[in-house]
Amino acid sequence: MLLRTQGRGRGVRRPVLRHPAQVVVTAFLVADLIGTLLLMLPASRAGAGSAPVVTALFTSTSAVCVTGLTTVDTATYWSPFGQAVILGLIQVGGFGIMTLASLIALFLSRRMGLRTRLTAAAETRSVGLGDVRRVLRGVFVVTVVVESVTAALLTARFRTAYDDDWGTAAWHGVFHAVSSFNNAGFALFSDNLMGFLTDAFVLLPISVAVIIGGLGFPVLMELARRVPVRRWSLHTRLTLSMTAALLGGGTAFVTLAEWGNDGTVGGLPPLAKLLAGWFHAVQPRTAGFNAWDYGQVTDETLMGTILLMFVGGGSAGTAGGLKVTTFIVLFFVIVAEVRGDRDVIAFDRRIDHRVVRQATTVALLGVAAVVGGTMLLTELTDLPLPDVMFETTSAFATVGLSTGITPQVGEPGQLVLVVLMFLGRLGPITLVSALALRQRTRRYTLPEGAPLIG
Amino acid sequence: MLLRTQGRGRGVRRPVLRHPAQVVVTAFLVADLIGTLLLMLPASRAGAGSAPVVTALFTSTSAVCVTGLTTVDTATYWSPFGQAVILGLIQVGGFGIMTLASLIALFLSRRMGLRTRLTAAAETRSVGLGDVRRVLRGVFVVTVVVESVTAALLTARFRTAYDDDWGTAAWHGVFHAVSSFNNAGFALFSDNLMGFLTDAFVLLPISVAVIIGGLGFPVLMELARRVPVRRWSLHTRLTLSMTAALLGGGTAFVTLAEWGNDGTVGGLPPLAKLLAGWFHAVQPRTAGFNAWDYGQVTDETLMGTILLMFVGGGSAGTAGGLKVTTFIVLFFVIVAEVRGDRDVIAFDRRIDHRVVRQATTVALLGVAAVVGGTMLLTELTDLPLPDVMFETTSAFATVGLSTGITPQVGEPGQLVLVVLMFLGRLGPITLVSALALRQRTRRYTLPEGAPLIG
Ligand SMILES: [K+]
Ligand SMILES: [K+]
Repeated sequence: MLLRTQGRGRGVRRPVLRHPAQVVVTAFLVADLIGTLLLMLPASRAGAGSAPVVTALFTSTSAVCVTGLTTVDTATYWSPFGQAVILGLIQVGGFGIMTLASLIALFLSRRMGLRTRLTAAAETRSVGLGDVRRVLRGVFVVTVVVESVTAALLTARFRTAYDDDWGTAAWHGVFHAVSSFNNAGFALFSDNLMGFLTDAFVLLPISVAVIIGGLGFPVLMELARRVPVRRWSLHTRLTLSMTAALLGGGTAFVTLAEWGNDGTVGGLPPLAKLLAGWFHAVQPRTAGFNAWDYGQVTDETLMGTILLMFVGGGSAGTAGGLKVTTFIVLFFVIVAEVRGDRDVIAFDRRIDHRVVRQATTVALLGVAAVVGGTMLLTELTDLPLPDVMFETTSAFATVGLSTGITPQVGEPGQLVLVVLMFLGRLGPITLVSALALRQRTRRYTLPEGAPLIG
Repeated sequence: MLLRTQGRGRGVRRPVLRHPAQVVVTAFLVADLIGTLLLMLPASRAGAGSAPVVTALFTSTSAVCVTGLTTVDTATYWSPFGQAVILGLIQVGGFGIMTLASLIALFLSRRMGLRTRLTAAAETRSVGLGDVRRVLRGVFVVTVVVESVTAALLTARFRTAYDDDWGTAAWHGVFHAVSSFNNAGFALFSDNLMGFLTDAFVLLPISVAVIIGGLGFPVLMELARRVPVRRWSLHTRLTLSMTAALLGGGTAFVTLAEWGNDGTVGGLPPLAKLLAGWFHAVQPRTAGFNAWDYGQVTDETLMGTILLMFVGGGSAGTAGGLKVTTFIVLFFVIVAEVRGDRDVIAFDRRIDHRVVRQATTVALLGVAAVVGGTMLLTELTDLPLPDVMFETTSAFATVGLSTGITPQVGEPGQLVLVVLMFLGRLGPITLVSALALRQRTRRYTLPEGAPLIG
C-alpha cells in the first residue's frame, strides 16, 4: 500500500490506495508463501516427516484463496497445528479480500465521480487512512459477529447431538464457522459434511453464514445501517435480487435433478431432499462444502452446479466466481437490446457503458480461463471431461467442490489448479481496478465501422 | 415479403423489405414443411413403406437449415429421388439464407445511416426491388460458379480414382459440391467422407468450397469487385482476419491433438496428418463433413471443435454458428477495456456501442441456447455429457458433426435438435434485424448507477 507520508497534520486527508491491484496481489502472494512454509514444518503433519512442497503450496493456496480443494485429507493428514495454520490462512484470506476489495470499490466509485454510501465524506480521488480504518473496523465487526454466532450454534449441536466433548465440539464449531463465513469449504471430517446430510441444525447455520459472507461488505453495510429499501444503492438491489433468484432457482433445480437419485437423496423423505437441495444450491456460490458425493450426482446437477459456481457470489465479500452483478448487468444488456432501449437500465438506473464493458470483459476472460484450464488439465490427465470441467470451474471460482479427482490430477495438474485459484480469486478484482485506472481518451474520433453481427 | 405496390413508374425505388425477420422465418418454415411432406412419400425411401414423420421432419430441417445431422443413413435409407429432395432442400436453404441475410444486412446498414459497398445508391430507409434483383443475381452467380468448379473437380476424381461410372461420378460430384458450398455436410456415403481421409483431391476442393460459402456474400462481393485492400470495409477485414486466424490456429490445434491418436490419424505420415487436421479445422465452421470418426477423437479435439463450431463462419453466407464478427467484436471489446480506450476500435474504425451490444446479446443468447439444449438432452437421454454437448453445439451452429449419438437421442431428443437447428439457423439473424428495427429513445435520462463488477 503506497502511503503518502508528507501529511501536514491531522486535518489533512492522506491518500493510501494508489496502486490497488499491486497491493492485493503482493499481499496474497506473501500470505500464500508464509502459509506454504508453515505447512512444510514437521509440526504441521499428523504423521511422520513433513509435507512435500507441492502439497503445502496447494493447501496454502486453497486456504488463502478460500477455495477448499484438497489433495490430502484435512482431517487426518494435518496435525491440530497444521489445521490451525489452515484456519489462520482462511481467516487472513477472507478478511483480506473483503477489506481490500471494499477499499478498491470505494476508490473506484470515487474515481468514477460517484458518491458512495460507504462514506459520508465529499468526493476525493483517493482513499484516506480514515476510510481504511472505517472499512477494517466494519469488516472486523461483521466477521466476529457472524462467526461467533455460527460457532456457538454449531458447537452446541456437535456437543449435544454427536457426543463430542466440549473441547472437540468448540474446535469443530469454530473451524467450520470460520470456514463457512469465509466461503472456504474446508472441513475437519474426512468426508467433508456428508455425515450431516439430514441435519438441519448443522446445514442451516452454515448456509446462512455462507450467504452472509458472500453478499459482500458494501451490501452488508447498507443492510446494517438500515437504509430504507427505496434508497438502496443499485449495487445492493442487483446483488440481493440476483442472490435470491439463484438461491430459489438453484434449490428448485438441484432438488428436482436429484429427487430420484439413489446415490444422493433418492431414499430420503421430501423435506430432507429439499434441505439437501437448498444446501447444495448454497454451496456452489461459493463455499464448497458438500453433504453428498459429487461423484454420484446426475449430469443435470453437475451442469447446473458448474453454472452456479461460475456466477459465484457478491462483489467485495468472501465469495468467488465472476460475481452476481457481472451477470445481472449482462442480463440487463440483453433486456435493453431486446426492448430496443438506447441505455442499459436496471431498477430505474442507467448503467454506464463502461460498466457494461467491464462486465463483458470479466465474463469473457473468465470463460477463457476456465476453457484454457480445462484444456490444460485434459492434456495433463486422462480424467473424464465432465469431471475436469467441474474441477476447473471449482478452482477458478474458488468454490472447492469436486467429483473427487483432485488427488489424481498429479503435480503439474495441481499447479494448474493453483494458478486457477489465484487467477479466480484475484483476477476479476485486479482486472477491474487496474482497468478503471487506465481510462484514456483519444484526442480524435475515428470514423465508424459497422460489421454485421449474427 | 411486404411489397409496396403503389410504385409510380420505373424511376421510383420501391421498398420491399419491411419486416425481414418474419419473411425469413416464414420462408424457412414453408420450405421445411414441403420438404417433410416430400420425404414422407414412399418414392423417397429406398426400402418398402414411407419414412415416419419425425424422421422426415428431422431430415428436412437438417437439410434446409444446412446442418447435416442425420438419424438415418442418407446413402441407404433414401432413394435417389429422396436424395434429390435433400439436395434441393440444401440448395434452397443455402441460397435462401445467403440472399435474405444479405438483403437484411443491406436494409440494416441503411437504417443505421451507413453507406454500404453492396450498392452505390444513396441512403434510403428500405430495400428496393433493384437491390433484391442485384443480390439475387450476385448470389446466383457465385453459387453456380463455385458449385460447378467443385463438382467438376470431384467428378473427375471420383471417375478416375474410384472407378465410378460417369453417371455415378457426376451425381456424387454434384451432390457433394452443393453440400460443400452450402455448408450442409450431407454425404452420399454411409461413413460420410471417412473413405477419403488421405485423398487431397477430394478433401481440398470440398474445403475450398466450404470456406468460400462460409465467408458470406458481402465479403465475396467486395473480393469479386477487386476492391483494393486498403479500402476494404471493416466487415470484410474482420471476417477475413478472424477466418484466417481460426483456420490457422484450428489446423495447428487439431493436428497436434490427434497426432498420436491411433483411432484417427496416429498411423499416417506427417503430411497426411496435416491434411486431415486442416480438413477437420475447416469442417466445424460449419460444413460438418467428417473424414474421421468423431467418436474416436481426443477430448482436446472434442473441446476445440465445440469452440470452433460455436464461433462458426461469416455473416450472410451459408455458414452457421454465432459468426466470426460477433466474436472478433467481443475480442476488441476486451482490447479496448484492457487498454483503457473510451471507444472500441478495430482496424482504425470505431465500433458503435450498439454493435457491441448486439454482439454481446447474440453471444449470450447463443450460450443460453446451447446450455439449455444440453440440459434438455441430458434429461431426455442417458448419453455421455461430452457427446451431448458436442451434439447440441453442432445442431445449434448448424454444423452436422456428431460423435455418433444422433440416432440414439429418441424422438423427443430429435425434436429438441430440430428446434436447435432452426434457432441456430434463424435466431441470430432475425434477432439482430428485429432488434435493430426497434431502437427506441427515452425522452428523459435516468440517473446513473454503478454496481461493482468482479
Ligand atoms: K470455497
Ligand atoms: K452444416
